[in-house]
Amino acid sequence: MKAIKLFERASRTYSDSSSFSKLLVVFTVSGGGLLAYADANSTSPIAPPEIKKKRVVVLGTGWAGTSFLKQLDNPSYDVQVISPRNYFAFTPLLPSVTVGTVEPRSIVEPIRNIVKKKNVDVHYWEAECFKIDSQSKKVHCRSNQNIDGKGKEEFVVDYDYLVIAMGARPNTFNTPGVVEHCNFLKEVEDAQKIRRSVIDAFEKASLPSLSDEERQKMLHFVVVGGGPTGVEFAAELHDFVKEDLVKLYPAAGKYVKITLLEAADHILTMFDKRITEFAEDKFKRDGIDVKLGSMVIKVSDKEISTKARVNGQVATMPYGMVVWSTGIGTDPVVKDFMKQVGQETRRVLATDEWLRVEGTDSIYALGDSGKLTVKELQEVVDDICERYPQVDLYLKTKKLRNIADLLKDDSKSSVEISIEELKAALKEVDAQVKNLPATAQVAAQQGAYLAKCFNRMEEAEKNPEGPLRFRGEGRHRFRPFRYKHFGQFAPLGGEQTAAQLPGDWVSIGHSTQWLWYSVYASKLVSWRTRSLVVTDWVKRFIFGRDSSSI
Amino acid sequence: MKAIKLFERASRTYSDSSSFSKLLVVFTVSGGGLLAYADANSTSPIAPPEIKKKRVVVLGTGWAGTSFLKQLDNPSYDVQVISPRNYFAFTPLLPSVTVGTVEPRSIVEPIRNIVKKKNVDVHYWEAECFKIDSQSKKVHCRSNQNIDGKGKEEFVVDYDYLVIAMGARPNTFNTPGVVEHCNFLKEVEDAQKIRRSVIDAFEKASLPSLSDEERQKMLHFVVVGGGPTGVEFAAELHDFVKEDLVKLYPAAGKYVKITLLEAADHILTMFDKRITEFAEDKFKRDGIDVKLGSMVIKVSDKEISTKARVNGQVATMPYGMVVWSTGIGTDPVVKDFMKQVGQETRRVLATDEWLRVEGTDSIYALGDSGKLTVKELQEVVDDICERYPQVDLYLKTKKLRNIADLLKDDSKSSVEISIEELKAALKEVDAQVKNLPATAQVAAQQGAYLAKCFNRMEEAEKNPEGPLRFRGEGRHRFRPFRYKHFGQFAPLGGEQTAAQLPGDWVSIGHSTQWLWYSVYASKLVSWRTRSLVVTDWVKRFIFGRDSSSI
Repeated sequence: MKAIKLFERASRTYSDSSSFSKLLVVFTVSGGGLLAYADANSTSPIAPPEIKKKRVVVLGTGWAGTSFLKQLDNPSYDVQVISPRNYFAFTPLLPSVTVGTVEPRSIVEPIRNIVKKKNVDVHYWEAECFKIDSQSKKVHCRSNQNIDGKGKEEFVVDYDYLVIAMGARPNTFNTPGVVEHCNFLKEVEDAQKIRRSVIDAFEKASLPSLSDEERQKMLHFVVVGGGPTGVEFAAELHDFVKEDLVKLYPAAGKYVKITLLEAADHILTMFDKRITEFAEDKFKRDGIDVKLGSMVIKVSDKEISTKARVNGQVATMPYGMVVWSTGIGTDPVVKDFMKQVGQETRRVLATDEWLRVEGTDSIYALGDSGKLTVKELQEVVDDICERYPQVDLYLKTKKLRNIADLLKDDSKSSVEISIEELKAALKEVDAQVKNLPATAQVAAQQGAYLAKCFNRMEEAEKNPEGPLRFRGEGRHRFRPFRYKHFGQFAPLGGEQTAAQLPGDWVSIGHSTQWLWYSVYASKLVSWRTRSLVVTDWVKRFIFGRDSSSI
Repeated sequence: MKAIKLFERASRTYSDSSSFSKLLVVFTVSGGGLLAYADANSTSPIAPPEIKKKRVVVLGTGWAGTSFLKQLDNPSYDVQVISPRNYFAFTPLLPSVTVGTVEPRSIVEPIRNIVKKKNVDVHYWEAECFKIDSQSKKVHCRSNQNIDGKGKEEFVVDYDYLVIAMGARPNTFNTPGVVEHCNFLKEVEDAQKIRRSVIDAFEKASLPSLSDEERQKMLHFVVVGGGPTGVEFAAELHDFVKEDLVKLYPAAGKYVKITLLEAADHILTMFDKRITEFAEDKFKRDGIDVKLGSMVIKVSDKEISTKARVNGQVATMPYGMVVWSTGIGTDPVVKDFMKQVGQETRRVLATDEWLRVEGTDSIYALGDSGKLTVKELQEVVDDICERYPQVDLYLKTKKLRNIADLLKDDSKSSVEISIEELKAALKEVDAQVKNLPATAQVAAQQGAYLAKCFNRMEEAEKNPEGPLRFRGEGRHRFRPFRYKHFGQFAPLGGEQTAAQLPGDWVSIGHSTQWLWYSVYASKLVSWRTRSLVVTDWVKRFIFGRDSSSI
């Protein structure tokens, strides 16, 4: 019953989502604000297609890049894809791969498979982009394999349009020792490495002639970061140990300890409070030691040091393996590119709401590598007030019920609002918008949105479908990108999952686990991966997880 | 129809095999010959079990070791297993793993899983034995992982009985450059490495800005050794390229070349001539370049040099990847052990026909690490004639129809045979016996045989069931080991397999491929691996093989 209600609720929410929720109003606002900027420095951002095919270069085969490639169906482009990984990986299942609930190959699909049946010319090069040259519209690439007598092959690719979808790096916050001693959980290889490390730890701890302290240390698994990935990994590891490993390593069982370190006051802070509480309680029952308010300050080859946020107390504990999952940082190549386009002072690459990188006319950024953001709204408002004194007047005289009304240009009677108040409000809005979560959902939607824009480029030139231009005549060619949030899952182990769906709807328990299975199975990129992952799940139910050290 | 007949034939042959075929007569002969030796130097080889459990140490978790562990069910032993691999791998499917027809995890079973439900105490240590000390009955082991501050953990294990089942190393015949530049195909890791190398080669060759020569070189795959493994790998690689890769890498297809180098005059020389011919023809049709009579003399990082056996001509060709599969050599640890037991002049470890290492009283050798062999029969005969002059007389006066009759001690009228002729005949027999193939079948049967001996050790002490002792009173405790050959497969690609069953029965074609599927599926170690491998086969039929570079 519960499950059915959940589905009804979910589908109702999905169908409602086109009628703009509160969140979407925010987008309209920031969108409007940004038009001013986008127009200010564009000469002719996207020229009409010529007979010669436009060269589109896509950097990356993650969620954003792959989603872009899948949706692109206008044969007037010549597409080149550059990525060190010749496959797309369904990253939400990476925590499952770390313990073998799902096999690595079940969640990947070769990018050549994805693009081979398209009517668009797509070439893939297995290489890493090490420099973007936005002046001469070239990207410099390097193969990740040695070629005899030549070292790593380097080559240059020209573009007319560049789509940056490289994804981000794990953020270490420059904590000493993290890069050297911690495992990350961003790539399939990371998950495979963790899997081997867990088995290795059990094998090592089973050797004769070791002290109890040594065994305890080897089987102390530390997870840094209480976000969805860290929590899911801790839960999966706990299940693997309890359901499979203690049966095979009965002597080692009593030494196992899992610690979850979180710098904030709670885990899963992006979720509803009920989910956070449930998760913390469940982990307590499971014996996972959740240390809240603990900032990691140093990792050595044997110990991890934390500082308590409350009293600054420093504690040090020996560990066997650390998984670092605290968020993402910007790729050095993107950092370098940001300098070229005058964004050196920004933390992340800024785009307008058509996903075009600010300061460029033909470069787009998707997914983790470019967060949707806007030029500081405050500056925009200042700019507006300076150039259009009537707006200043308007702001001072008109009564505004809602910020959006300003940009919609049809005000309604409302409370009065001062310019300063407006600025403060806009700033807050801006900060929120910038924090669009760096999730697969966002990246996939961005990729699909951009592909649709590319597909209709010619047509939209003639019949623009976007909002009215804030400055200048006519309309924008496209509607701005809008993120539709379809909810988020937090698997907590023991066949229990928490889910937060739009409309603050929260569901926790076994039925949600089944919803999780259904949603993830349906979202997988191909029928091949879908059937493989489902087979893996069935396998796990019947035979448990494999513990071979390969 | 053909398939049904094949099954009938096969099962008839299997049921016949207990009534000793020609081959088995040979064993009887060599067996008898050897008794003399075995008795000569044994004081009390296997003491009756005391209340304290006898410590059995098993080195290796391959076919022989695992088969021994599976069959051992006498709880009066305390078993310790030492192997760097915590799993058993179904090695006949390794060539399939190289191209992803079967996944690596589908063919492995954790050794802890295999032994956990036994009534015998079995402990497993993930470590490598680096020294056998037969004087003080100890093995020295080293963990294959670093333990902080200690390096690799070393420990010593005492034994009452030692079972050497470590398997052999690939034999490079000291050819320069082989270890540095060639891939082997003995372990699961080898197969995984080959799989990555093949995909890498295709990705490299697809990069822009390479010359045709470079692409040709990268996609030139060389297989050294025309035995069953080399041939099967070449066939699997060919199928992978034709069925999957050319579709995804259309530009690279024309550069691919597979070369098979064989020093002898034909490939698959251990099979019937009809199979050899069929295989050579099929490879010719498939475009696999089989170079017969080509001995590899050197491998550099770019080129492989061969010498023609006929005219000594040296040829050098560039390659992208080499897989070396020419047979096996002895492990250095076993070599060192051979010195301790006075076998320094032998090529391989020699055992008597109860699988006990010659020169020891409590060490057994199984599988590739100890070939079943006998002390040179010629020496035995000399020895017999010296000590028992009546035998000499007997040989000279009696007419022997069959060499076996001598040892059975009931001669029948036959042609006369001189001592010299007998020596020559015995020598030939010895040479044949020594060449028992180093296959999974032999190893598995040896492991099972030895486990049965261990299971009935006490009982057999009271009621010996072996043949009469050649010297001394009474009977041997056990019947000697006898290898039953159930035939051998040679998969040739394109869903065609050749099979040679006992009685010189040969079957080639698609129906044999299905027999191959059935036999291999049934021989897999557990229901888990069985269902996984079958799932992999189904997967491959539906979706093809995966080409992701992970």
